[in-house]
Amino acid sequence: MRELTVASVQMSMVADAGANVAAAEERIRAAAAQGAQLVLVPELFEGPYFCIDQLPEHLARARPLPGHPTVERFQALAAELGIVLPCNVYEQAGPARFNTVVVIDADGTALGSYRKSHIPDGPGYTEKYYFSPGDTGFRAWRTRHGVVGLAICWDQWFPEAARAMALLGAEVLLYPTAIGSEPPDPTWDSCGHWQRTMQGHSAANLVPVVASNRYGHEVGADGQREITFYGSSFITDHTGAKVAEAPRDADAILTATLDLDELAADRAAWGLFRDRRPDLYGPLLTLDGEHRHPGASS
Amino acid sequence: MRELTVASVQMSMVADAGANVAAAEERIRAAAAQGAQLVLVPELFEGPYFCIDQLPEHLARARPLPGHPTVERFQALAAELGIVLPCNVYEQAGPARFNTVVVIDADGTALGSYRKSHIPDGPGYTEKYYFSPGDTGFRAWRTRHGVVGLAICWDQWFPEAARAMALLGAEVLLYPTAIGSEPPDPTWDSCGHWQRTMQGHSAANLVPVVASNRYGHEVGADGQREITFYGSSFITDHTGAKVAEAPRDADAILTATLDLDELAADRAAWGLFRDRRPDLYGPLLTLDGEHRHPGASS
Repeated sequence: MRELTVASVQMSMVADAGANVAAAEERIRAAAAQGAQLVLVPELFEGPYFCIDQLPEHLARARPLPGHPTVERFQALAAELGIVLPCNVYEQAGPARFNTVVVIDADGTALGSYRKSHIPDGPGYTEKYYFSPGDTGFRAWRTRHGVVGLAICWDQWFPEAARAMALLGAEVLLYPTAIGSEPPDPTWDSCGHWQRTMQGHSAANLVPVVASNRYGHEVGADGQREITFYGSSFITDHTGAKVAEAPRDADAILTATLDLDELAADRAAWGLFRDRRPDLYGPLLTLDGEHRHPGASS
Repeated sequence: MRELTVASVQMSMVADAGANVAAAEERIRAAAAQGAQLVLVPELFEGPYFCIDQLPEHLARARPLPGHPTVERFQALAAELGIVLPCNVYEQAGPARFNTVVVIDADGTALGSYRKSHIPDGPGYTEKYYFSPGDTGFRAWRTRHGVVGLAICWDQWFPEAARAMALLGAEVLLYPTAIGSEPPDPTWDSCGHWQRTMQGHSAANLVPVVASNRYGHEVGADGQREITFYGSSFITDHTGAKVAEAPRDADAILTATLDLDELAADRAAWGLFRDRRPDLYGPLLTLDGEHRHPGASS
């Protein structure tokens, strides 16, 4: 029996990056002390959600991956604790910038990186100003504690990303995220919609999902835009049912223990991955169902 | 404002096909009297769920579509009531047999047919004995009352089917179905899993889903296999939240009124269909994430 205990850390962020990284480390240590072998912290945990504004000075937050101090600190932490530890940072890569997770194995090895593929853009979430759409594609990472799929925030709305990771062998899907209220309409609450979308990925792929969100109220530089991040981090079983859920406005460390062999047996027995029809899925490689995308890889 | 009132009929079936078709008609008339402009009845409503057994005599239930008496009756009914009315039958097509829905427009015109693409096979649900995997691919049907996507039962577990229909313009997704207990393990209840999967399709594609299931206890010919179909038919809003749900063991007519223009505006504003990455979705046209399916259409 291959058991994996996963943890989702929910936290809020302050202006100082050092304080955020220290706070994340403290919570990661607490999760490991509770038995977690894989710990997920929220998207872009080093700072406030700067995409609330479009300010050139925020572009300078990006750092090259080789020698990135937060990644190196997380590598040491992962090795010390023996945990799988994804580390999400703002990556500078030559002239380009990406929203990137480095997947760190339980011995501290960086297995590689994933660049966020789907980039949102709307009032308060103007990410297209900061990030190029990722070019790595979806991966399943063979870690010491199991095969892990990981995508970032807006990616979580796309069934294609979840399915690709599941097809590549992911036994659990991880989503670090930063989502909350919508500045144009403070009464609009997407929380249930957000959870149900990922519960659907879990249910359709028969894999647990771990989502880690921030909480707290953040205000843009000009005081005009504000977002209340709604927390509600959660973990599902492999049928999309929530087995752990955080409140909307408080720190939380959620854990769940998965029997990866039993999950694999259930996936096989249910038969979905036997009965797929790739010959009929051509429309998915288009934007409008009809016209083939020129960059389509098949 | 384009309003569409949809209805999901939940019913149980008896041995006599004539009685089932008459019972379906009665409920369709009742739904139309409640204002429904589109009425969905359960999968293979003409009879008991014969796929519980593998018996050659059930192969003779298949009928060619031209002149199919139930389809013709439903065409007349649709025209009389002015409703969109999918009609699901066991189709004989030359030497092949399919699980097929004829989509009937509100003037009685048969717009075409969809053949179930994903065919399950497991104890009590041995459909591969009866049906070839459908060759029509996924469609969105431009009816007088809106653009409708439709897939059949096991199809409902596949995010690819839902996405393809949404990309082709479907404003609502319809799933006639026949699902219940699992003969090898009567304690296994997939109902929540089943609902969450389709709620996920709804949430990820920002379209309402209408599911119509049968209920009741059915026993195979040798008395060895039995299934209790669990009803629980439902309708979602465009965020995957259930807005109507039937009990597990009783007749029901569920209705919901959709504002199709408002839904289209919400889909546009949320931005998901702007940000898809077909160039990264190549793994979806494979069975294992890596090897290209030889029949892949792109």
